[in-house]
Amino acid sequence: MLSFVNDYSEGADERILQRLLETNREQLPGYGEDRYCLSAREKIRSACGCPDADIYFLTGGTQTNKIVISSLLAPWQGVVAAESGHIGTHEAGAIENAGHKVLTLPHREGKLMPDTLAQYLRSFYADENHSHMVFPGMVYISWPTEYGTLYSRRELADLYDICREYQIPLYIDGARLCYGLSCSACDLTLPELAALCDVFYIGGTKAGALCGEALVFPKKNTPPQFSTILKMYGALLAKGRLLGIQFDTLFTDNLYLQISKNAIETADVLKEGFRRKGYRFYLDSPTNQIFVILENSRMEALSRQAAFCFWEKLDASHTVVRFATSWATSMQDVEALVQLL
Amino acid sequence: MLSFVNDYSEGADERILQRLLETNREQLPGYGEDRYCLSAREKIRSACGCPDADIYFLTGGTQTNKIVISSLLAPWQGVVAAESGHIGTHEAGAIENAGHKVLTLPHREGKLMPDTLAQYLRSFYADENHSHMVFPGMVYISWPTEYGTLYSRRELADLYDICREYQIPLYIDGARLCYGLSCSACDLTLPELAALCDVFYIGGTKAGALCGEALVFPKKNTPPQFSTILKMYGALLAKGRLLGIQFDTLFTDNLYLQISKNAIETADVLKEGFRRKGYRFYLDSPTNQIFVILENSRMEALSRQAAFCFWEKLDASHTVVRFATSWATSMQDVEALVQLL
Amino acid sequence: MLSFVNDYSEGADERILQRLLETNREQLPGYGEDRYCLSAREKIRSACGCPDADIYFLTGGTQTNKIVISSLLAPWQGVVAAESGHIGTHEAGAIENAGHKVLTLPHREGKLMPDTLAQYLRSFYADENHSHMVFPGMVYISWPTEYGTLYSRRELADLYDICREYQIPLYIDGARLCYGLSCSACDLTLPELAALCDVFYIGGTKAGALCGEALVFPKKNTPPQFSTILKMYGALLAKGRLLGIQFDTLFTDNLYLQISKNAIETADVLKEGFRRKGYRFYLDSPTNQIFVILENSRMEALSRQAAFCFWEKLDASHTVVRFATSWATSMQDVEALVQLL
Amino acid sequence: MLSFVNDYSEGADERILQRLLETNREQLPGYGEDRYCLSAREKIRSACGCPDADIYFLTGGTQTNKIVISSLLAPWQGVVAAESGHIGTHEAGAIENAGHKVLTLPHREGKLMPDTLAQYLRSFYADENHSHMVFPGMVYISWPTEYGTLYSRRELADLYDICREYQIPLYIDGARLCYGLSCSACDLTLPELAALCDVFYIGGTKAGALCGEALVFPKKNTPPQFSTILKMYGALLAKGRLLGIQFDTLFTDNLYLQISKNAIETADVLKEGFRRKGYRFYLDSPTNQIFVILENSRMEALSRQAAFCFWEKLDASHTVVRFATSWATSMQDVEALVQLL
Repeated sequence: MLSFVNDYSEGADERILQRLLETNREQLPGYGEDRYCLSAREKIRSACGCPDADIYFLTGGTQTNKIVISSLLAPWQGVVAAESGHIGTHEAGAIENAGHKVLTLPHREGKLMPDTLAQYLRSFYADENHSHMVFPGMVYISWPTEYGTLYSRRELADLYDICREYQIPLYIDGARLCYGLSCSACDLTLPELAALCDVFYIGGTKAGALCGEALVFPKKNTPPQFSTILKMYGALLAKGRLLGIQFDTLFTDNLYLQISKNAIETADVLKEGFRRKGYRFYLDSPTNQIFVILENSRMEALSRQAAFCFWEKLDASHTVVRFATSWATSMQDVEALVQLL
Repeated sequence: MLSFVNDYSEGADERILQRLLETNREQLPGYGEDRYCLSAREKIRSACGCPDADIYFLTGGTQTNKIVISSLLAPWQGVVAAESGHIGTHEAGAIENAGHKVLTLPHREGKLMPDTLAQYLRSFYADENHSHMVFPGMVYISWPTEYGTLYSRRELADLYDICREYQIPLYIDGARLCYGLSCSACDLTLPELAALCDVFYIGGTKAGALCGEALVFPKKNTPPQFSTILKMYGALLAKGRLLGIQFDTLFTDNLYLQISKNAIETADVLKEGFRRKGYRFYLDSPTNQIFVILENSRMEALSRQAAFCFWEKLDASHTVVRFATSWATSMQDVEALVQLL
Repeated sequence: MLSFVNDYSEGADERILQRLLETNREQLPGYGEDRYCLSAREKIRSACGCPDADIYFLTGGTQTNKIVISSLLAPWQGVVAAESGHIGTHEAGAIENAGHKVLTLPHREGKLMPDTLAQYLRSFYADENHSHMVFPGMVYISWPTEYGTLYSRRELADLYDICREYQIPLYIDGARLCYGLSCSACDLTLPELAALCDVFYIGGTKAGALCGEALVFPKKNTPPQFSTILKMYGALLAKGRLLGIQFDTLFTDNLYLQISKNAIETADVLKEGFRRKGYRFYLDSPTNQIFVILENSRMEALSRQAAFCFWEKLDASHTVVRFATSWATSMQDVEALVQLL
Repeated sequence: MLSFVNDYSEGADERILQRLLETNREQLPGYGEDRYCLSAREKIRSACGCPDADIYFLTGGTQTNKIVISSLLAPWQGVVAAESGHIGTHEAGAIENAGHKVLTLPHREGKLMPDTLAQYLRSFYADENHSHMVFPGMVYISWPTEYGTLYSRRELADLYDICREYQIPLYIDGARLCYGLSCSACDLTLPELAALCDVFYIGGTKAGALCGEALVFPKKNTPPQFSTILKMYGALLAKGRLLGIQFDTLFTDNLYLQISKNAIETADVLKEGFRRKGYRFYLDSPTNQIFVILENSRMEALSRQAAFCFWEKLDASHTVVRFATSWATSMQDVEALVQLL
């Protein structure tokens, strides 16, 4: 059956597996201090235009979010996020388990708008009872968002200005960063993004790696003893090479961006197919996630021939579903799906 | 200056202080095992119609909420509450600090309506992604609510039915329980309330004690080693007598309900005063908290002669403020305030 | 029956209760901002010779330890303490519940000796695997210790030098501080003690208050938003006056030290009694706790006429027990006990 | 340079990498529900003789220990371990970070002896102050231990009897389980070990996998919603296939035990070499870790030609060092090292 369920259904780009094989019998130090980790860090620093960045490799997005957020917040602070933000919806309470509230604000197509943030922060400090409330201690956004949308350069700069005004860090969840950077609607480069936040991660799991996220502190602002913190959270792989080799490969000859283009090209063809056949979109996403409104019996029928992801009920007779492409999606599968529509 | 800022501005009913003096030189065991704690427990069991209840004395509401909620939830569960619930707004993240999310739902005049709860729980389990979400593990309500309103017997019974259907405990924050029980709109007795929940506390701090809340597990459902848990949270007073003597006094000859009547009587006169003078109420509260809408310049003027509590901005020119009466409010002060209106 | 079980068996010095009565109907702001809290802070600053100290009132020792330690440590740090330290033995895991390890070191009569500390810190940083270990982030000592012994001025200064060398704060648990300051073996003043640490608390619960500990940050080193932290831990009393009035009274005309002298005088008479009757001491404590070795059948017999505290088994036929005096112990009771020996 | 630093210096058994390549483009469900995870679980159940076991795949030992221990303990409980236990020494406070104390007991060559455990538990409950102490809520042992030693069948059965008497679970950290099972001193089978505990994990990271530990609940005693707990701790890999395929390969045709035999054979030759050359052993380990006492200048000289692991200082002129072999150690390297001795 055709599957467009998500962007982590396949293994890894074969060049990664090949490198794992080639380097397999080398004896290397553990815990992220091997030569492949060092090399990957150097290449990422260069790609981000941040020669001084500190970089850590973790195994997944929830793990990364939990550790970054709990390390940057004081005990009495929470993290501000859009109501649709992954940390508040589908991470099983990971942030609260580490002791912090997710302070949610309304979103527009998955985005926390600068006005919304500014208004919230102003109100918070204007409230004379705020010393008994959870203080906003950092801002979390996803780029692309959970709806596949992108903050423009302007929006990101505005958010960052507000964060600096209130002296709280801005953190970007880049689980699907590569798909944002590869799409035609993007008006940002990776160095520009790195300059407009305090910490971000470059997702590997959804971008052709077996697992792994590269966490970047671009501005010499890493929490002290961060690698001890990773150990404390059970996030430090003994064989750090597994992550180093993957990211070293992804950041060699720009493989990272190159393979993500496939997701965008296949998504564009699929979107065009939906449009041509008269389907309604729930919103307009420029990246690899497509949100379509299906009449329920149509959904039922389609689900017998292709796999996709239930998103939410729209009304009694319609449902929002998501089709995702990835680095591994074949144009052939897309064309077969368009045929079915 | 006249003060209606809150219901904890004075010390304690003098009979309590008297008893502290009378018993002062008795040598008593510590940690809540003295004869006054035992006697207070017996009297509370009797007042609640729960001969088997386990009862613990704590020093404050946030402390009680934090400990009860974290003791009853599994790590992967959160507590459901109205958006206006005290645990989610003015407890500085105490619940999240103990590892749990507050799952907020819309309210009606401070109340979590049974339909809202039922709909949420149904949707949660219907969502096929719910295993990555925070599970609803208990329900928290305040009686009276933060807006001074009361759940009727019917509403409480409906909430409890839903909780039992989903096998999650219902917890009632009774910081102002006495004021609810004493008002004419109340259609519940204390034993009925105790029967319609799994755990609740009887507030002392806002009801004529120096400090103290009596936590009641009416149904032999106390978490194991609960007194060790209290110690672990720093909530076990060495001189437990301080709490025991206070509650023993409050539950002797119904002093608890008797003194709270004063709050209701003075509130009723004050409400009538506002009404007569043409003030608008933000909502209709039957207990000791009165929410009035003031035009801003009127608020400014009034605040020079009487103290009250800012609640929230209504619009550019109006503000919601709260006047609270208590066991200690004098009718004379109320009349003086009505004069000023 | 005569009781020497502990130093918190009675209520409070009557002057405290009197002040509670006198001030009872004053309408005061909540949460520690009333005039009595302000006055008590000023008097304590003066008694400590720390005009800039920040002072907070909490309700008990475990609560204070938990909050101070968790507020001063980074997540990857633990607190160093003697094996006999209260935080590691009888606080039900309060420190670990807040996320931190108690790093225990051997003690001498309850004291963490400077050499032991220095040797441990040197070894820790010499160990090439220490990045996977819990870092020592502060040092906790009790003064007097759990065995009633005292650090001399020299010992305290040496400990503090070591702490400063490693840039970790020194915290003094002063649950029984008054009894240390009042005894003849003490070679320290309160201002000297305040100068030789980074944070300490002055115990009220064991020194004639109903409850309460005064936490002192003598050097402008209070963690940010500390009162929000107190709220988050459920440690902020709505009626902060209860603590303010008590400490204001205790620090008026040196009442604090005056009443603690009684504990020392009665303890000295009792010790002399034991000595005269040929009893063996487990160790020599200069303060209000007396540790005596009793032959088991003697212990059995004595326990029928006087209450004391089991401490630990010494061998098959002997037991260490503790007799405690306090501000409230009558010389008459001591003489009656000596008669019984 | 020859390296015997640890048992996780190389990548993975090549058959594992081969399987990753072969299955790479299969579209599989995420989060551990793919066919390889299911198959691996089935094979492990069979190898353990536990047809009903629940099995989860995690990425590392510290992560597994943290999650298992915090999921099985009540908030007021701690985990009992030998002083040398990995959770108390080299996991950066992971257990305390999750809220629990590690209750350490003396060990014999890395083993927690049944008598020591029984004596501790008896004393704990005999202590009349134990309600203010951390309750022992489970027992943690490593098999093999951190010193490479093994509990005999008898010792394990005795420990388990004690645990059952006190109704607390016994948890076995099997980071190096394969090396224990493969050595000649072992008098246990895997099904026997599974029968003598409540939960254990089979280490993959140190046994020829890139990463991964298989956590086994042999007795239908999995904590509720365990996979939500994994998500909450950031331990649930989106591409669970990475772990499933590795364990499926390791448990096909007993590859797991087969490759671990190499570690034992090379270790035996190495030990014989040390013995022949007159080296002193720190203790006698039957598995793949060899603890040797080196005179310091000898250590210095040797470290220029071979890498090994510093363990601890023995005295001013001697040091304990560790040589580890693994599934990947070549006999040629061992012989070269023996030449150097």
